[in-house]
Amino acid sequence: MQSADAKFNKNSLLLALRGYSSAVSDMERTVLLPSMLRDVPTDEAWDCDATEESCRDLYSNYLMLKAIRTTVESSLVLLDDHKAKSNAALDKTLEPLLDTDPETLFHFHLIGLFSVMSDLTKKTQSLTVKYMDIIGVAN
Amino acid sequence: MQSADAKFNKNSLLLALRGYSSAVSDMERTVLLPSMLRDVPTDEAWDCDATEESCRDLYSNYLMLKAIRTTVESSLVLLDDHKAKSNAALDKTLEPLLDTDPETLFHFHLIGLFSVMSDLTKKTQSLTVKYMDIIGVAN
Repeated sequence: MQSADAKFNKNSLLLALRGYSSAVSDMERTVLLPSMLRDVPTDEAWDCDATEESCRDLYSNYLMLKAIRTTVESSLVLLDDHKAKSNAALDKTLEPLLDTDPETLFHFHLIGLFSVMSDLTKKTQSLTVKYMDIIGVAN
Repeated sequence: MQSADAKFNKNSLLLALRGYSSAVSDMERTVLLPSMLRDVPTDEAWDCDATEESCRDLYSNYLMLKAIRTTVESSLVLLDDHKAKSNAALDKTLEPLLDTDPETLFHFHLIGLFSVMSDLTKKTQSLTVKYMDIIGVAN
Protein backbone atom coordinates (compact mmCIF):
# COMPACT_ATOMS: atom_id res chain seq x y z
CA MET A 1 0.00 0.00 0.00
CA GLN A 2 3.09 2.27 0.08
CA SER A 3 2.78 3.42 -3.51
CA ALA A 4 -0.99 3.90 -3.15
CA ASP A 5 -0.37 6.07 -0.07
CA ALA A 6 2.18 8.13 -1.97
CA LYS A 7 -0.28 8.58 -4.83
CA PHE A 8 -3.08 9.72 -2.55
CA ASN A 9 -0.85 12.04 -0.56
CA LYS A 10 -0.61 14.15 -3.69
CA ASN A 11 -4.37 14.06 -4.07
CA SER A 12 -5.64 17.60 -3.94
CA LEU A 13 -9.07 16.58 -2.65
CA LEU A 14 -7.21 15.25 0.38
CA LEU A 15 -5.29 18.54 0.59
CA ALA A 16 -8.56 20.50 0.46
CA LEU A 17 -9.98 18.38 3.30
CA ARG A 18 -6.77 18.80 5.32
CA GLY A 19 -6.72 22.55 4.66
CA TYR A 20 -10.23 22.83 6.07
CA SER A 21 -9.37 20.73 9.11
CA SER A 22 -6.35 22.92 9.76
CA ALA A 23 -8.42 26.15 9.44
CA VAL A 24 -10.90 24.81 12.04
CA SER A 25 -8.02 23.91 14.39
CA ASP A 26 -6.71 27.50 14.06
CA MET A 27 -10.21 28.79 14.78
CA GLU A 28 -10.47 26.63 17.91
CA ARG A 29 -7.06 27.77 19.18
CA THR A 30 -8.04 31.42 18.64
CA VAL A 31 -11.66 31.39 19.82
CA LEU A 32 -11.17 30.71 23.54
CA LEU A 33 -14.58 32.12 24.47
CA PRO A 34 -17.01 30.97 21.75
CA SER A 35 -19.93 32.51 23.66
CA MET A 36 -18.61 35.95 22.61
CA LEU A 37 -19.85 35.07 19.11
CA ARG A 38 -23.48 34.81 20.28
CA ASP A 39 -25.86 37.22 18.56
CA VAL A 40 -23.07 38.52 16.31
CA PRO A 41 -24.73 38.64 12.89
CA THR A 42 -23.13 37.02 9.85
CA ASP A 43 -22.87 38.66 6.45
CA GLU A 44 -23.94 35.70 4.34
CA ALA A 45 -27.44 35.54 2.86
CA TRP A 46 -27.75 31.76 3.35
CA ASP A 47 -27.53 32.17 7.13
CA CYS A 48 -30.81 34.02 7.20
CA ASP A 49 -33.88 32.24 5.93
CA ALA A 50 -37.14 34.21 5.98
CA THR A 51 -39.01 31.07 7.04
CA GLU A 52 -36.80 30.56 10.10
CA GLU A 53 -37.63 32.27 13.38
CA SER A 54 -34.15 33.61 13.88
CA CYS A 55 -31.15 34.13 11.62
CA ARG A 56 -27.91 32.29 12.31
CA ASP A 57 -25.33 34.08 14.45
CA LEU A 58 -21.53 33.57 14.38
CA TYR A 59 -21.83 31.21 17.36
CA SER A 60 -24.04 28.74 15.47
CA ASN A 61 -21.65 29.05 12.50
CA TYR A 62 -18.78 28.19 14.87
CA LEU A 63 -20.59 25.02 16.00
CA MET A 64 -21.52 24.10 12.41
CA LEU A 65 -17.93 24.50 11.15
CA LYS A 66 -16.65 22.27 13.99
CA ALA A 67 -19.31 19.61 13.29
CA ILE A 68 -18.36 19.51 9.60
CA ARG A 69 -14.68 19.08 10.56
CA THR A 70 -15.66 16.00 12.59
CA THR A 71 -17.42 14.54 9.52
CA VAL A 72 -14.42 15.41 7.30
CA GLU A 73 -12.01 13.65 9.67
CA SER A 74 -14.11 10.60 10.48
CA SER A 75 -16.33 10.40 7.38
CA LEU A 76 -19.00 8.94 9.57
CA VAL A 77 -21.70 9.89 7.15
CA LEU A 78 -25.02 8.41 8.07
CA LEU A 79 -27.63 8.45 5.37
CA ASP A 80 -30.38 9.08 7.93
CA ASP A 81 -28.41 12.00 9.32
CA HIS A 82 -28.06 13.43 5.81
CA LYS A 83 -31.75 12.92 5.15
CA ALA A 84 -32.63 14.92 8.24
CA LYS A 85 -30.39 17.73 7.05
CA SER A 86 -31.55 17.80 3.46
CA ASN A 87 -34.19 20.24 2.35
CA ALA A 88 -36.96 20.30 -0.22
CA ALA A 89 -34.90 22.19 -2.83
CA LEU A 90 -32.11 19.63 -2.60
CA ASP A 91 -34.47 16.65 -2.71
CA LYS A 92 -35.86 18.06 -5.94
CA THR A 93 -32.38 18.35 -7.45
CA LEU A 94 -31.78 14.66 -6.83
CA GLU A 95 -34.48 13.63 -9.29
CA PRO A 96 -32.66 14.46 -12.57
CA LEU A 97 -29.40 13.15 -11.06
CA LEU A 98 -30.84 9.63 -10.91
CA ASP A 99 -30.73 9.42 -14.72
CA THR A 100 -27.24 10.87 -15.06
CA ASP A 101 -24.35 8.64 -16.10
CA PRO A 102 -21.80 7.90 -13.33
CA GLU A 103 -18.93 9.68 -15.12
CA THR A 104 -20.79 13.01 -15.16
CA LEU A 105 -22.03 12.43 -11.59
CA PHE A 106 -18.48 11.73 -10.42
CA HIS A 107 -17.18 15.03 -11.83
CA PHE A 108 -20.24 16.88 -10.53
CA HIS A 109 -19.76 15.69 -6.93
CA LEU A 110 -15.94 15.92 -6.96
CA ILE A 111 -15.99 19.54 -8.15
CA GLY A 112 -18.91 20.28 -5.82
CA LEU A 113 -16.97 18.93 -2.84
CA PHE A 114 -13.84 20.94 -3.79
CA SER A 115 -15.92 24.07 -4.14
CA VAL A 116 -17.83 23.69 -0.84
CA MET A 117 -14.60 22.83 1.06
CA SER A 118 -12.99 26.00 -0.27
CA ASP A 119 -16.08 28.00 0.76
CA LEU A 120 -16.10 26.48 4.28
CA THR A 121 -12.35 27.07 4.72
CA LYS A 122 -12.79 30.78 3.85
CA LYS A 123 -15.77 30.98 6.22
CA THR A 124 -13.70 29.48 9.06
CA GLN A 125 -10.85 31.93 8.46
CA SER A 126 -13.26 34.86 8.30
CA LEU A 127 -14.91 33.82 11.59
CA THR A 128 -11.47 33.62 13.26
CA VAL A 129 -10.60 37.16 12.08
CA LYS A 130 -13.98 38.48 13.25
CA TYR A 131 -13.43 37.00 16.73
CA MET A 132 -10.05 38.74 16.93
CA ASP A 133 -11.77 42.01 15.99
CA ILE A 134 -14.36 41.48 18.75
CA ILE A 135 -11.77 40.85 21.47
CA GLY A 136 -9.65 43.73 20.11
CA VAL A 137 -6.62 41.74 19.02
CA ALA A 138 -4.86 43.02 15.87
CA ASN A 139 -4.06 40.46 13.18
CA MET B 1 1.37 16.41 9.93
CA GLN B 2 1.80 12.92 11.41
CA SER B 3 -1.41 13.03 13.43
CA ALA B 4 -3.32 14.60 10.53
CA ASP B 5 -2.08 11.78 8.28
CA ALA B 6 -3.19 9.18 10.80
CA LYS B 7 -6.60 10.84 11.02
CA PHE B 8 -7.07 10.91 7.27
CA ASN B 9 -5.83 7.37 6.80
CA LYS B 10 -8.96 6.25 8.63
CA ASN B 11 -11.09 8.44 6.40
CA SER B 12 -13.53 6.22 4.58
CA LEU B 13 -13.86 8.60 1.61
CA LEU B 14 -10.16 7.92 1.07
CA LEU B 15 -10.81 4.19 1.43
CA ALA B 16 -13.62 4.41 -1.15
CA LEU B 17 -11.29 6.20 -3.60
CA ARG B 18 -8.53 3.63 -2.95
CA GLY B 19 -10.99 0.73 -3.36
CA TYR B 20 -11.98 2.07 -6.76
CA SER B 21 -8.37 2.55 -7.83
CA SER B 22 -7.60 -1.01 -6.77
CA ALA B 23 -10.62 -2.41 -8.70
CA VAL B 24 -9.42 -0.63 -11.88
CA SER B 25 -5.91 -2.04 -11.39
CA ASP B 26 -7.41 -5.55 -11.14
CA MET B 27 -9.42 -4.86 -14.29
CA GLU B 28 -6.28 -3.76 -16.16
CA ARG B 29 -4.32 -6.83 -15.04
CA THR B 30 -7.17 -9.11 -16.17
CA VAL B 31 -8.21 -7.43 -19.42
CA LEU B 32 -5.11 -8.05 -21.54
CA LEU B 33 -7.01 -7.58 -24.82
CA PRO B 34 -9.40 -4.68 -24.26
CA SER B 35 -10.47 -4.79 -27.91
CA MET B 36 -12.38 -8.01 -27.11
CA LEU B 37 -14.86 -5.77 -25.28
CA ARG B 38 -15.79 -3.88 -28.47
CA ASP B 39 -19.48 -4.10 -29.41
CA VAL B 40 -20.26 -6.11 -26.27
CA PRO B 41 -23.44 -4.45 -24.99
CA THR B 42 -23.77 -3.29 -21.40
CA ASP B 43 -26.80 -3.90 -19.22
CA GLU B 44 -27.14 -0.43 -17.74
CA ALA B 45 -29.86 1.91 -18.98
CA TRP B 46 -27.67 5.03 -18.64
CA ASP B 47 -25.24 3.67 -21.23
CA CYS B 48 -27.88 3.90 -23.90
CA ASP B 49 -29.28 7.32 -24.71
CA ALA B 50 -31.98 7.45 -27.38
CA THR B 51 -30.55 10.72 -28.70
CA GLU B 52 -27.12 9.15 -29.26
CA GLU B 53 -26.35 7.35 -32.50
CA SER B 54 -24.97 4.30 -30.79
CA CYS B 55 -25.14 2.91 -27.27
CA ARG B 56 -22.02 2.47 -25.20
CA ASP B 57 -20.21 -0.86 -25.42
CA LEU B 58 -18.06 -2.47 -22.72
CA TYR B 59 -14.93 -1.14 -24.46
CA SER B 60 -15.99 2.49 -24.01
CA ASN B 61 -16.89 1.68 -20.40
CA TYR B 62 -13.39 0.23 -19.95
CA LEU B 63 -11.82 3.48 -21.22
CA MET B 64 -14.18 5.61 -19.10
CA LEU B 65 -13.41 3.65 -15.89
CA LYS B 66 -9.64 4.05 -16.52
CA ALA B 67 -10.01 7.80 -17.17
CA ILE B 68 -11.93 8.28 -13.91
CA ARG B 69 -9.21 6.39 -12.04
CA THR B 70 -6.65 8.91 -13.37
CA THR B 71 -8.79 11.77 -12.04
CA VAL B 72 -9.24 10.00 -8.68
CA GLU B 73 -5.49 9.53 -8.30
CA SER B 74 -4.33 12.92 -9.54
CA SER B 75 -7.43 15.03 -8.77
CA LEU B 76 -6.51 17.13 -11.75
CA VAL B 77 -10.03 18.40 -12.11
CA LEU B 78 -10.29 21.16 -14.65
CA LEU B 79 -13.45 23.20 -14.50
CA ASP B 80 -13.47 23.54 -18.29
CA ASP B 81 -13.13 19.78 -18.62
CA HIS B 82 -16.08 19.33 -16.29
CA LYS B 83 -18.11 21.89 -18.19
CA ALA B 84 -17.56 20.01 -21.42
CA LYS B 85 -18.76 16.81 -19.77
CA SER B 86 -21.80 18.26 -18.03
CA ASN B 87 -25.19 17.97 -19.62
CA ALA B 88 -28.33 20.08 -19.70
CA ALA B 89 -30.09 18.10 -16.94
CA LEU B 90 -27.13 18.57 -14.61
CA ASP B 91 -26.78 22.29 -15.37
CA LYS B 92 -30.41 22.71 -14.41
CA THR B 93 -29.83 20.92 -11.09
CA LEU B 94 -27.12 23.43 -10.21
CA GLU B 95 -29.56 26.33 -10.04
CA PRO B 96 -31.31 25.48 -6.72
CA LEU B 97 -27.94 24.39 -5.28
CA LEU B 98 -26.64 27.97 -5.49
CA ASP B 99 -29.00 29.02 -2.70
CA THR B 100 -28.27 26.02 -0.47
CA ASP B 101 -26.30 26.51 2.74
CA PRO B 102 -22.76 25.03 2.67
CA GLU B 103 -23.47 22.46 5.42
CA THR B 104 -26.25 20.82 3.38
CA LEU B 105 -24.17 21.12 0.19
CA PHE B 106 -21.20 19.46 1.91
CA HIS B 107 -23.29 16.44 2.97
CA PHE B 108 -24.95 16.28 -0.44
CA HIS B 109 -21.64 16.13 -2.35
CA LEU B 110 -19.87 13.88 0.19
CA ILE B 111 -22.66 11.29 0.11
CA GLY B 112 -22.96 11.72 -3.67
CA LEU B 113 -19.25 11.02 -4.11
CA PHE B 114 -19.40 7.94 -1.83
CA SER B 115 -22.38 6.65 -3.74
CA VAL B 116 -20.92 7.17 -7.23
CA MET B 117 -17.55 5.65 -6.19
CA SER B 118 -19.36 2.56 -4.93
CA ASP B 119 -21.32 2.38 -8.20
CA LEU B 120 -18.15 2.75 -10.32
CA THR B 121 -16.28 0.14 -8.26
CA LYS B 122 -19.10 -2.39 -8.81
CA LYS B 123 -19.14 -1.53 -12.52
CA THR B 124 -15.37 -2.13 -12.77
CA GLN B 125 -15.66 -5.51 -11.01
CA SER B 126 -18.60 -6.52 -13.21
CA LEU B 127 -16.67 -5.60 -16.39
CA THR B 128 -13.70 -7.71 -15.20
CA VAL B 129 -15.97 -10.72 -14.61
CA LYS B 130 -17.64 -10.25 -18.01
CA TYR B 131 -14.22 -10.21 -19.76
CA MET B 132 -13.30 -13.48 -18.04
CA ASP B 133 -16.61 -14.97 -19.30
CA ILE B 134 -15.79 -13.82 -22.86
CA ILE B 135 -12.33 -15.38 -22.87
CA GLY B 136 -13.72 -18.50 -21.19
CA VAL B 137 -11.83 -18.29 -17.92
CA ALA B 138 -13.72 -19.48 -14.84
CA ASN B 139 -13.71 -17.18 -11.80
